[in-house]
Amino acid sequence: MASNFKMKVGILGATGAVGQRFIQLLDGHPWFEVGVLTASDRSVGKRYGEACRWLLRGGMPETVAGMRLVPSEPGAIGADVQLLFSALPGSAAGDVEDALAEAGYAVCSNASAHRMDPDVPLLIPDVNPDHTGLIPVQRARRGRQGFIVCNPNCTTTHLVCALKPLQDAFGLASVNVVSMQAISGAGYPGVSALDILDNVVPYIGGEEEKVESEPRKLLGSLQGENVRMADFLVSAQCNRVAVRNGHLEAVSVKLERPAALEEVARAFTQYSSEPQRLGLPSAPDPAIILHNSEDRPQPRLDRLAGKGMVTQVGRLRPDPLFDYKFIVLGHNTIRGAAGGAILNAELLCAQGYLRRENAE
Amino acid sequence: MASNFKMKVGILGATGAVGQRFIQLLDGHPWFEVGVLTASDRSVGKRYGEACRWLLRGGMPETVAGMRLVPSEPGAIGADVQLLFSALPGSAAGDVEDALAEAGYAVCSNASAHRMDPDVPLLIPDVNPDHTGLIPVQRARRGRQGFIVCNPNCTTTHLVCALKPLQDAFGLASVNVVSMQAISGAGYPGVSALDILDNVVPYIGGEEEKVESEPRKLLGSLQGENVRMADFLVSAQCNRVAVRNGHLEAVSVKLERPAALEEVARAFTQYSSEPQRLGLPSAPDPAIILHNSEDRPQPRLDRLAGKGMVTQVGRLRPDPLFDYKFIVLGHNTIRGAAGGAILNAELLCAQGYLRRENAE
Amino acid sequence: MASNFKMKVGILGATGAVGQRFIQLLDGHPWFEVGVLTASDRSVGKRYGEACRWLLRGGMPETVAGMRLVPSEPGAIGADVQLLFSALPGSAAGDVEDALAEAGYAVCSNASAHRMDPDVPLLIPDVNPDHTGLIPVQRARRGRQGFIVCNPNCTTTHLVCALKPLQDAFGLASVNVVSMQAISGAGYPGVSALDILDNVVPYIGGEEEKVESEPRKLLGSLQGENVRMADFLVSAQCNRVAVRNGHLEAVSVKLERPAALEEVARAFTQYSSEPQRLGLPSAPDPAIILHNSEDRPQPRLDRLAGKGMVTQVGRLRPDPLFDYKFIVLGHNTIRGAAGGAILNAELLCAQGYLRRENAE
Amino acid sequence: MASNFKMKVGILGATGAVGQRFIQLLDGHPWFEVGVLTASDRSVGKRYGEACRWLLRGGMPETVAGMRLVPSEPGAIGADVQLLFSALPGSAAGDVEDALAEAGYAVCSNASAHRMDPDVPLLIPDVNPDHTGLIPVQRARRGRQGFIVCNPNCTTTHLVCALKPLQDAFGLASVNVVSMQAISGAGYPGVSALDILDNVVPYIGGEEEKVESEPRKLLGSLQGENVRMADFLVSAQCNRVAVRNGHLEAVSVKLERPAALEEVARAFTQYSSEPQRLGLPSAPDPAIILHNSEDRPQPRLDRLAGKGMVTQVGRLRPDPLFDYKFIVLGHNTIRGAAGGAILNAELLCAQGYLRRENAE
Repeated sequence: MASNFKMKVGILGATGAVGQRFIQLLDGHPWFEVGVLTASDRSVGKRYGEACRWLLRGGMPETVAGMRLVPSEPGAIGADVQLLFSALPGSAAGDVEDALAEAGYAVCSNASAHRMDPDVPLLIPDVNPDHTGLIPVQRARRGRQGFIVCNPNCTTTHLVCALKPLQDAFGLASVNVVSMQAISGAGYPGVSALDILDNVVPYIGGEEEKVESEPRKLLGSLQGENVRMADFLVSAQCNRVAVRNGHLEAVSVKLERPAALEEVARAFTQYSSEPQRLGLPSAPDPAIILHNSEDRPQPRLDRLAGKGMVTQVGRLRPDPLFDYKFIVLGHNTIRGAAGGAILNAELLCAQGYLRRENAE
Repeated sequence: MASNFKMKVGILGATGAVGQRFIQLLDGHPWFEVGVLTASDRSVGKRYGEACRWLLRGGMPETVAGMRLVPSEPGAIGADVQLLFSALPGSAAGDVEDALAEAGYAVCSNASAHRMDPDVPLLIPDVNPDHTGLIPVQRARRGRQGFIVCNPNCTTTHLVCALKPLQDAFGLASVNVVSMQAISGAGYPGVSALDILDNVVPYIGGEEEKVESEPRKLLGSLQGENVRMADFLVSAQCNRVAVRNGHLEAVSVKLERPAALEEVARAFTQYSSEPQRLGLPSAPDPAIILHNSEDRPQPRLDRLAGKGMVTQVGRLRPDPLFDYKFIVLGHNTIRGAAGGAILNAELLCAQGYLRRENAE
Repeated sequence: MASNFKMKVGILGATGAVGQRFIQLLDGHPWFEVGVLTASDRSVGKRYGEACRWLLRGGMPETVAGMRLVPSEPGAIGADVQLLFSALPGSAAGDVEDALAEAGYAVCSNASAHRMDPDVPLLIPDVNPDHTGLIPVQRARRGRQGFIVCNPNCTTTHLVCALKPLQDAFGLASVNVVSMQAISGAGYPGVSALDILDNVVPYIGGEEEKVESEPRKLLGSLQGENVRMADFLVSAQCNRVAVRNGHLEAVSVKLERPAALEEVARAFTQYSSEPQRLGLPSAPDPAIILHNSEDRPQPRLDRLAGKGMVTQVGRLRPDPLFDYKFIVLGHNTIRGAAGGAILNAELLCAQGYLRRENAE
Repeated sequence: MASNFKMKVGILGATGAVGQRFIQLLDGHPWFEVGVLTASDRSVGKRYGEACRWLLRGGMPETVAGMRLVPSEPGAIGADVQLLFSALPGSAAGDVEDALAEAGYAVCSNASAHRMDPDVPLLIPDVNPDHTGLIPVQRARRGRQGFIVCNPNCTTTHLVCALKPLQDAFGLASVNVVSMQAISGAGYPGVSALDILDNVVPYIGGEEEKVESEPRKLLGSLQGENVRMADFLVSAQCNRVAVRNGHLEAVSVKLERPAALEEVARAFTQYSSEPQRLGLPSAPDPAIILHNSEDRPQPRLDRLAGKGMVTQVGRLRPDPLFDYKFIVLGHNTIRGAAGGAILNAELLCAQGYLRRENAE
């Protein structure tokens, strides 16, 4: 990306909570520039500034306020855009994303619809950058030039970023995780204040299934045209707490090989991967922060470390049942959603799956 | 307790958060009547109504507002009281309770100081009512007529109430628990609002050690003059959340014998024990509530079920790593603190360790 | 109401937040018994237990769980019911309530649609019990046997309950009020947690207009067939805060006649009115609680005083601009909504506008 | 301040909540550099990084972590520092600040002790920059070379910043204000979570007196050696709400001269004063933001506008009792405390009361 020409990108479902994060994070991005915003029928034709109730601090970037919302359809998006970020809600995402990939677009999706499709990369650049090898498989099998790449669920993302160094160094036998998830994960309006003030809701529909299955694909190995699932087991219990942003996870792991506490700590602190090596614009550096203070990381104090892109680990200690236990904190709508999809797109650029000259 | 004569009791550390709960729960109690209130030097000599910043709904009972606070010393407490409830803070409790037991008082303590002493019953009437058999041992070993009985930590209490039916029916191999604990557990003023609003604090000093050790004594067996610790292992991760009252625990258990889901459910719903059989005034009935709704129990909606004395279980389901996982909810300052100590005292009455005629 | 025969009543819009309060407050009511529940098309035909996401502590009364929901139409409600409580949302309420009054029902409405109609009593039994004199006017003008009676907005209710003793004793020249209103006032799901956690929203649509206009009708005088509006002015600024229940109002008043602080205090504490005189089942007694503590009343500690039916005043002190300032606290979904409508119906019974024999 | 030499400054009471804000805001300040940190006896001798529980996002600046804490005494502070920022708690501040001014230091204080002293400037550079004319008076009267300048209470600050344009343009007859104040205003640990979760506390000790008196000095005029108090009256009711940062105030004003709504709006938006004219480093520009959206400003969304230094006004509308009503939002620990004191020091530099060459 030597020149300073920017690639025009579109955002599908731009008015929602995740759509807004895409806009915020792409404002001033060195490689990408927002060219198209899509919305549901109710908002199509309106200007973004009218249709969107902006929820984030710092205000709506002026560059998008005047843009007219178009439908999430190939004809409406146009040919000067090659890459689409999908913030579509789960139910609608599957078919729309397929139609756009058919029409030749590269779709970096935050939706869950295609995550577990065998020929769709479920991608975290820090963890499994080689899984983009599924893109040619997907193109060939589905007979299309466009393609879909998914980032995982927000809770999965940070869990797997923390597990990867352990898998590399010691092997993983089993993982238990209990999450305390922020309200922003449910979108807007999302969680009713009456449900969460002075309360914990010990259930998030569909979440535990995702957290128990996605890590095994992410930490699996690409063998020929398929990802062979990792064979450790995950058990997840997911809870909603009265926190705005930042998912906290209490994790216990059984390793395949014995490891001293210092070795485990070093595995976290020394971990570095493709995004750091390639110097991707949104890559956190270091990839993981290990806290030494006995009561950190905490959502409010630490969620914005590394601009919300870093995975944070704390309270690492031996466990009487597993081998080690620790807590993981990560920002759920930055790295866990929009930021994760953007980092995926940056990797696709670096790997040559997206070419800026194509975009013109 | 056929007559309607009430036993006069004292409350040690009456002005704090747990002390207030004792007063609230003893107001109108059919067997016990508050006769003495103790406080630290700063408050001794003042009337309770002046010295205490009352935190609970419903206001301070008028019967105590005018009582003068005395020191936590035998001479000040007097001879017309036989039974003392201890809400003393952890650091001070150990020596003071010992001195009072030396002086002949029965002390039902919520403090942690003596919980793990080999000759002190760590008691939950629903779980190990026979452990009061340590009282004669304690009297003999320490050469005193008075004695100390402890109720466990608030998180331990509800965890063990839920584990007991499983231990009885299927045996327990191992237990993993991640708690989301209410702010009232830290007393008053306790948790700063700046620390918990929009946050989770993933650390509570000393808590995990208690939750990992106390269950093994509670679920151990009294053999001669000793409690033989149960041999399953517990791993605990304790977190503070922005909830006023009600500790929620995400629990996973490995059983010793295979059990179908329905059998486990039945073990919870059919569990009944000494407090129910004896009809103790503060006994919950049923002992355990099993919720079927996928998102219950929740702290705010359910913490006052069974007047805060019942342990509630929900989301019972198979676990990929352990055998079953479920959530447990219980009120931390009622059953988990003052109410637990009062139920202990009721059992002591029913078992003859406290005699009303002695009190006169 | 000497006999123990109960009048069958219906609840319009029974599944919402206010509908649930009606059900909770009518459970065990000495005069009224829920016989019919209505809901919107989406829920008609379902059992209440299936259609309603119960939000209140203590669980759904068993007597209603099995009842089938019917439409809010005369034909569906049937003839064995004479009195309907309306918890209909504002937009729908006006026409539906009129149609039901046409069909002969007495409607005690919590909706705002008809509050300011000249021939509809806007009624607080403690304040203007004689305004029921508009009922014959309404019947005559509209040529119908049924009628509508409204209770005011939740913020208005407690404000006016506090102003009435001052108006009686000293006359009112002007009133300034800034409210801090609970989230339950917006219904369910109502306020998004993302909007209110760590925030205040300084705007509630339509609220200030109601609080500035309704008090003048309530404190006006019935003259012939009309209510002559009271001629003091009210200025209101309404805010939403992160409180579950209980509206707090910072009030300043200018009186028409000079009054010493003690006289004002006495006006509050000695106030008593029709509900107390008639011994209506839901009447608070005393009508008003005046707090002396410098930091009370507070929503969490005091909102359930008097079973949520009492208006509480605190921090009474002279004001440099007006004459006096004070705070007012009241429960917004009990006295401020469902409980207010029920008290209205009790007054109608006592005044003979509802006859139990008619209901049979 | 043409050269890039920085003036060394000290912070009195550096470990508390306001002390931390001073450190955060001075990190990278173009004119000032932290050279000395003082603390109470308990912390003297420790390194700042050990003694301070850091509460702010972004972590403690490394430059201060290793500094040793000294007592708040002339001998300990040393001669290479000329300017001291005082974050001392109210009770201790008065005498300590006087002793330091005696010793020749310039003290910019956030404490309330000396605010109403006739010869101490109570200073907001946007409002009354000429009140620094009291400094020579103070030096002469008290026979000392050092001096004290105070910034007002956090609630007063933003109120007065909003009132100043109205006073200039139309004159002020009276002001009513009801505040909803953030918990950070009470310091750390400050407000107990048990007091504020699901609650509003309608009382803040001493606050209303400050808000009713300080504006009259700030908006008064320096005449010879005295400030003649402005003669309008203020009535204040102060409340604590569950918000981390950002005080919201519901304000009503009576003007001396009639003004159309547009004129009032223009007075806010066009207001500019000394800090903007002088280009002081911490000056907000514009001085005031006027929101047009019906529900803004809100604490969480808007408190960091203008880096927390700007005063924000919204919901400007006519008032039935006064002339206009509106809401004011401002950050309480930035502009309302540490940032206000720093802006004062910047003005003192610009006016020549602090000379960088003196500091060497």
